[in-house]
Amino acid sequence: MNHLETRYQTNLSLLTDLYQLTMAYGYWKTGSAEQEAVFHLFYRKNPFGGNYAIACGLQDVIDFLSTFKFSNSDLDYLKSLKNNKDQALFEDDFLDYLLHLEFSCDIDAVEEGTIVFPHEPLLRVRGPLLQAQLIETFLLNSINFQTLIATKSARIVAAAEGDLVHEFGLRRAQGIDGGLSASRAAYIGGCTATSNVLAGKIYDIPVKGTHGHSWVMSFEDELEAFEAYAKAMPDNCLLLVDTFDTIKGIQKALKIAAILRKNGHTFLGIRLDSGDLLSLSIQARELLDAAGFPKAKIVASDSLDEYKIKALKAKGALIDVWGVGTNLVTAKDQPALGGVYKLAAIRKKDRDWLYKIKLSNTSSKVSTPGILQVRRYFVSDGQPFGDMIWNIDNKELFPLIQSFDGRTIVTNNRLFKDLLVPIFKQGMLVYKSPSIHEIRAYRQEQVDLFDKVDFKLYPKGLEQQLNQQKLNLIQQHLL
Amino acid sequence: MNHLETRYQTNLSLLTDLYQLTMAYGYWKTGSAEQEAVFHLFYRKNPFGGNYAIACGLQDVIDFLSTFKFSNSDLDYLKSLKNNKDQALFEDDFLDYLLHLEFSCDIDAVEEGTIVFPHEPLLRVRGPLLQAQLIETFLLNSINFQTLIATKSARIVAAAEGDLVHEFGLRRAQGIDGGLSASRAAYIGGCTATSNVLAGKIYDIPVKGTHGHSWVMSFEDELEAFEAYAKAMPDNCLLLVDTFDTIKGIQKALKIAAILRKNGHTFLGIRLDSGDLLSLSIQARELLDAAGFPKAKIVASDSLDEYKIKALKAKGALIDVWGVGTNLVTAKDQPALGGVYKLAAIRKKDRDWLYKIKLSNTSSKVSTPGILQVRRYFVSDGQPFGDMIWNIDNKELFPLIQSFDGRTIVTNNRLFKDLLVPIFKQGMLVYKSPSIHEIRAYRQEQVDLFDKVDFKLYPKGLEQQLNQQKLNLIQQHLL
Repeated sequence: MNHLETRYQTNLSLLTDLYQLTMAYGYWKTGSAEQEAVFHLFYRKNPFGGNYAIACGLQDVIDFLSTFKFSNSDLDYLKSLKNNKDQALFEDDFLDYLLHLEFSCDIDAVEEGTIVFPHEPLLRVRGPLLQAQLIETFLLNSINFQTLIATKSARIVAAAEGDLVHEFGLRRAQGIDGGLSASRAAYIGGCTATSNVLAGKIYDIPVKGTHGHSWVMSFEDELEAFEAYAKAMPDNCLLLVDTFDTIKGIQKALKIAAILRKNGHTFLGIRLDSGDLLSLSIQARELLDAAGFPKAKIVASDSLDEYKIKALKAKGALIDVWGVGTNLVTAKDQPALGGVYKLAAIRKKDRDWLYKIKLSNTSSKVSTPGILQVRRYFVSDGQPFGDMIWNIDNKELFPLIQSFDGRTIVTNNRLFKDLLVPIFKQGMLVYKSPSIHEIRAYRQEQVDLFDKVDFKLYPKGLEQQLNQQKLNLIQQHLL
Repeated sequence: MNHLETRYQTNLSLLTDLYQLTMAYGYWKTGSAEQEAVFHLFYRKNPFGGNYAIACGLQDVIDFLSTFKFSNSDLDYLKSLKNNKDQALFEDDFLDYLLHLEFSCDIDAVEEGTIVFPHEPLLRVRGPLLQAQLIETFLLNSINFQTLIATKSARIVAAAEGDLVHEFGLRRAQGIDGGLSASRAAYIGGCTATSNVLAGKIYDIPVKGTHGHSWVMSFEDELEAFEAYAKAMPDNCLLLVDTFDTIKGIQKALKIAAILRKNGHTFLGIRLDSGDLLSLSIQARELLDAAGFPKAKIVASDSLDEYKIKALKAKGALIDVWGVGTNLVTAKDQPALGGVYKLAAIRKKDRDWLYKIKLSNTSSKVSTPGILQVRRYFVSDGQPFGDMIWNIDNKELFPLIQSFDGRTIVTNNRLFKDLLVPIFKQGMLVYKSPSIHEIRAYRQEQVDLFDKVDFKLYPKGLEQQLNQQKLNLIQQHLL
């Protein structure tokens, strides 16, 4: 069973917008269902005002497409839908077509954990128009959310400058899967552990947790609560000290720490969950050190995010582990990525490709036509040099990036890597998914690789010929 | 099968924070697992700066608790977890206890669709401490998110002043369930339909959709695309007109409208998805009316929310149906409710209740002790008069609300209704869930009921004796 099957009943084929099905019906009725089409999934603006995004969410796409199939129950439901005249919205023959539909598209995608930029396809779908249309919504849902959270996580982890970051967001996540997917993406983005036990089980993410306020409140007093906890779990003893008065709480925790040590156990530390984390962490560190526990950790939580962590660290907070919840798993300052999925080429049987473009008054919203690939160039020491989107349908490539910021950059003879790799070929899975730990390590490599890059200068744009094709199409539409 | 089983494998018992399990282990080890405890779930601040929230998410809680059971596979996973000494985190006997655990708490809850205020328990759990602790995370996840979205939806629907609002958010929702749960809550909050087909199937929500830009782009030109669509679905024909040039798009749509009418079909209208919705809707209305289609609808979408809808309507936009996506399903301006779950009373076998309080430097964050119920008083014409939180353990009730804003309000002899109703009694479901349509209608009744209420003056507070009990406890802790 794949992860999606573990989380859901196998069949999520109806997890789509109705207009995908009405369009599919239209394609089927007009005989264009089997036309070969190319769609790209991309976003237009880096989230959180950052320099890049971390691609994530591909695994759910793989799981979804591997089991894509309409069930009889799905079709019964579709059969029940009515049009404006209260007649069946869909013909029976179309529903029969759906019942026998077998997914047969090519999917190429950027691997999870890769650093990506606006307008670069994270995923390319090539295959029968009807199928490529039907899967749009799921692809967007999965890639949009997990890319958003992996990126947010990477930002928070960067702000923590090597301190551990634990994700504690489940209780405030947007639904069950808003929790599960977020835990996965947060781990890929660099968090070290999650509090979410089911995510730990499904995804093999380390889980962390000791006790909350209710533990303390359930006893007659705090010291008794700490004592009981330490007795029950002497080798998993990290005490939450702010239920009543933080400093008094720390002093009580230290009494327990001494007992634990005497009995051959290691006192792990304390958690602060409210109040002025700056001064409390400094006082806590002093108290812990003075009592002979310099290795005891100070964990802090309380509506943290990358901005608060940066500010606390800049002021000298002495926090070892950051527990981050709501602001991470909901990406509070920008809770949606805004990725889109656009038709870029189509051809009838035995005919040439027709390139397609979506116009807009905003130039950054004009889509790029063609069958796109992203080529990342490197300088000799392996540092990234620039990204070029090119059209694999073009025989000849010009060694020039027409950068989105208006520059023309020469690329010739540089080493490069094409970022989109084959995932499905004619509906067959051809990609071996890395483990979540490999993805996480790859994300770290990517962040390190780009460490010295000046993102303002880093060229990102279109190959020259593709750029010309795009301009030609725009002109054609404006005439 | 309940909704949750339809969406997920039956077993979500591990969907919790690890610290719930370590606390449970601690309760088990210290012999307090079976102590009777009372927890309340409540939020502290109305979302979106509004006057209230719409309670939602109870049905998932019912589904979760109805099937609550640890599986062997869950226990195998828990058995694999290690403590700091790389020994098993949990003893086998504890895991065996979990395996045989049967949910046996009392749950009382505010019915879905009810208008609620800060500090009022939306849910009260009473039962064995260990169990009440274990279920915390799921309860918070479900109630927090769905209450947030139902409230957001109600705000957007209010801003639309009787116009229809359709929810189109799945592609930008926070994960699969961020979409499904959001569609449910949005419908309860007042949206008329969703684009999310699986939500339609699972929850019996009306689904809506016609076509997107890719339909238009897949043809040689826009008119051909419209023609083909109208031919394929003459009785579900609402045309998206902004793929290239909105006004030209409307003119082409009108050609199709005339053909449809000639052939005995009804042209439903157009959708605007970009540009200046104010001027475009006014121009569109003129063009539609002039062509003899005054009943054709103008649907608008494009990052809408209650603020934009209000502004557009105030300026005279002529939009009939509002398609709302990202900003609704992610509750963009406040993507988490921040509800909490606090221990409020506990008692050992054959002993008196001990009331519990969580202190904080911020007075609004101090929890309320006791076994709480919410009484809503009414004036003779049925209009709500005020809300009083009271302790059902108190023999005597004073007819006075100590309002959170400092006033004392006399309640005597007024009609009232207690908002928390029994859902589970000793683990047995005793509540018959209303249909989603009944919940939606009840939400509308609630909104109408509070229509004339001045929320700034509406008293919300504690019954006098409970207020005194709270003050006593605070003093006790401060001594």
